[in-house]
Formats: sequence, C-alpha cells, structure tokens
Amino acid sequence: MNATVFFTLQEVDGAVLQDHTAVVIDVLRASSTIVAALAAGAQAIYPVVSTEEAIKLATSLGREDALLAGERRGLKVEGFDLGNSPREFTPEMVGGKRVVMTTTNGTRALLAVDGAEHVLVASFLNLSAVAAACADAERLAVVCAGREGRFSIDDTLCAGMLLSRLKERLGGTLEVEDAGRSALALAEAFGVDDALLADSAAGRSLAEVGMLDDVAWCGRVDVEELVPKLKERIIQRADGGGS
Amino acid sequence: MNATVFFTLQEVDGAVLQDHTAVVIDVLRASSTIVAALAAGAQAIYPVVSTEEAIKLATSLGREDALLAGERRGLKVEGFDLGNSPREFTPEMVGGKRVVMTTTNGTRALLAVDGAEHVLVASFLNLSAVAAACADAERLAVVCAGREGRFSIDDTLCAGMLLSRLKERLGGTLEVEDAGRSALALAEAFGVDDALLADSAAGRSLAEVGMLDDVAWCGRVDVEELVPKLKERIIQRADGGGS
Repeated sequence: MNATVFFTLQEVDGAVLQDHTAVVIDVLRASSTIVAALAAGAQAIYPVVSTEEAIKLATSLGREDALLAGERRGLKVEGFDLGNSPREFTPEMVGGKRVVMTTTNGTRALLAVDGAEHVLVASFLNLSAVAAACADAERLAVVCAGREGRFSIDDTLCAGMLLSRLKERLGGTLEVEDAGRSALALAEAFGVDDALLADSAAGRSLAEVGMLDDVAWCGRVDVEELVPKLKERIIQRADGGGS
Repeated sequence: MNATVFFTLQEVDGAVLQDHTAVVIDVLRASSTIVAALAAGAQAIYPVVSTEEAIKLATSLGREDALLAGERRGLKVEGFDLGNSPREFTPEMVGGKRVVMTTTNGTRALLAVDGAEHVLVASFLNLSAVAAACADAERLAVVCAGREGRFSIDDTLCAGMLLSRLKERLGGTLEVEDAGRSALALAEAFGVDDALLADSAAGRSLAEVGMLDDVAWCGRVDVEELVPKLKERIIQRADGGGS
C-alpha cells in the first residue's frame, strides 16, 4: 500500500484521488461526531458546506425526520437541532433520523475528497475498524481536516495511529512519504494524550466555548466498530448496520 | 517568545506577520544556496518569482556584475549563469556579484513573508547563527517553503532544530502551538539524518536529476556563522559582512 497523508485540506488536489481510498479525519470534532451519530442509530449524515444549504436540504428531506446539525466558531448554529458535540448525538436524539451537518473544517474536507474511489471517516473512536476497512487499498490518502487551513496536531496523531495500525498489518509493504513518516513518528512520540489534545489549538478553542469535555470524549480509542462511508454525498455505515 | 511554525507557504497569511520576525526555510535547496552564496562573498541576492522577472532585473542591474541563478524542476534554467546547487556558488563564481535568483518554492516563500518586521533565512548550515539572531524576537514565524504546497520533512526538521536551539536559550518562555510542538518532536525523533534527507520527497527529486550530492552538503549543521536578511526585496548578510 502506498499511503499519502495531507495535513491540511488545502494540500489536497481532489483530482488525483480518483483511484484512492480517502480517509477523512477531523478528531475535534466532525469525524468523532459522525461516528457517534451512526453509533447512536442515525440513518445517514448529509455533509454540506453552508448553513443555507443545510436548511434547504433538511427542508427537502422533510423536517420531521431530518435534523439540522452543525457549528460555527464551535457553537451550535442558531435554529439548528444539534451543534457539533458528539455527546449530543444520543439514540433518543438521532435514532432513525437523517442528519444534515455543516461544520467549519470537517464537512468541507469530506466534500473536497468526494472524487476518491472510496471515502471513509476516521476518528480515535473507530480507529481499528477503519484500519481493517482500508487495509486492502493500494493507494490510500489520509486527509486531515486541519483548522482553517492550518496544521492540527489532533488530526495528525490520529492519522499517525491509523498508519501505525496499518503498519502492524502490512509490515514493510506500507510505503509512506514525508508527511506519513512524520505522522507515524508523532504518534509514536505522543500517543493519545488527553492533556496534549486539550492543549492543542482545537482543544483550547473548545475550552473557550465550554466544550472541553468533548476533548476527552473524542480521545477514547477503539470504542466503536463502525466505519462511516461517504457515497453520493451521503454518509452511512459501510457495513449497512443501523441504516 | 511566541513561535508559530507554518509547514507550507500556503498556510501563511502574510498580513498577520507585520509584527513578527519571520525565518524562511527551504533546506533543499534555496535557503542553503542563499547561505552558500553570501558565504562565498556574493554582495546581495535578489529573489524573484518568475524567470522573466529575473532576466529583466539582471539586465537593469547591469549584466556584467549581476548573475542569473535558479531552477525549474531542479535543473538550471536555460541561459542562466547558475542553477540552484549551493556547490556552484563558489567565491570564483559569485564573489562581489549580485545574484538574481528564482526557484520553485524558496524564493516564493521569501516574497510571501516580506511584510514581516524582519525576514531571516535559515538552513542547517547556519542554524545556530539564526537562533542567536532571532532569540530576542517576541513573535517568531518559522515558514517552511514546502514542496509545491505540500509538507516537506527536510524543512520541518530544520524548523524543529531551530526551535530546539531557541528552547535551550529561552527555556519555558518559548511558547509553541500544534505545528511548533510537532516540529520539535520530529527534530528530536530524527535529528539530521543524511539517509532520511536523501529519502525525502525533495531528496529523491534531486537524486532523479543527478544532484544527490547536494543533500549531504545541505545537511551539514552550523558550518556558517552568517544570517541572510531580506529587506526591500534584497537579501544581504545581517552583520553587513561581505557586502
């Protein structure tokens, strides 16, 4: 397997991903929230870029079983049913529902790579499940959402741990380049460290809006088995479970 | 000191650097070549973006004492006096001369940050000299040129080693964020390793055009004391020596 890591969405040239399996990571918090939503029984997630687009799509899906979720500056968009805190996505709240979602970095990253052959969503929560799901890919693109175009250590550590899982499976046949090699080394140096995640730019920004508890919640490793998969702009469980 | 690291030129918002000291790094090879040129007695370096601009400027400076230097795809631009291999910049070749230079990543990075309060050029060759020159800055921006918008491990290790030198000087008063913390950890994990530099994307690309010897040359640490400084689009020694 040839694995390329992109530390920011802006590094990605969507056109070259056609024959790649892309894994999108936005640990704090969109990819963790997508995993939480599907684990809680949401039928599907519809990622969109703007709040206007979200409202329009939720209306056309039918407001009685489509929820609006998303954040701007870390806070729930006014009038939306949910923000972007994975802890809100309970079975009571989202079970059986469609969720239209817009976030600052994560949903943009998903839509930027939707030309890839397969698009999966990874977080610490479902790390080994994603590693198993993409282990047979010949060309893997691990896309960190980053923070408004900047490098993000939380996404990078998750990318590095994903590569580390793949290396355990594939050994010397895993080929990485500059960014992948660096992500692996950083995952080895830091591991998953709640204090470090809390002190990351994303963690500090969540603390500012009273959401620090989300950081430790998103830092739990391998608590879910499911793999969210994006196809035709809709995210569902790759195994079809819960949908 | 608050130190921010940018892993690619594209992450930089030039406008926010006004009150920063910016350090530009393009290990393979523009920043190493600039150090080599000034060490060999070049009077000044004029970084420009395009080959057309280079020819125009060299002509207006007077072709008898202005040299044209630069590369595209790693190779010397046709009709230019020099490429971008630091080994070419000998006292015989550049002593007392003005050098107009255009490269794929490095000279662009320099021009992108020229709104900063001070702009210095760092490479492994002059690492400790740059650390000494910027140790009193309150706000430091370390800008890795990267490779065509992508993360580059050679520049990152140099950035990490620069921060490591500053940390030795400043101790706990050095504040870093996600990218700076990562660069420090990567420098600690890898150090300066010729094999790793040769296996980087930039190293492999140089090997393809027969320039692999440049990699070990640029990987030598602290062999020069000088600090190139960009002011009004002209790079000269910060200490005025050799100019």
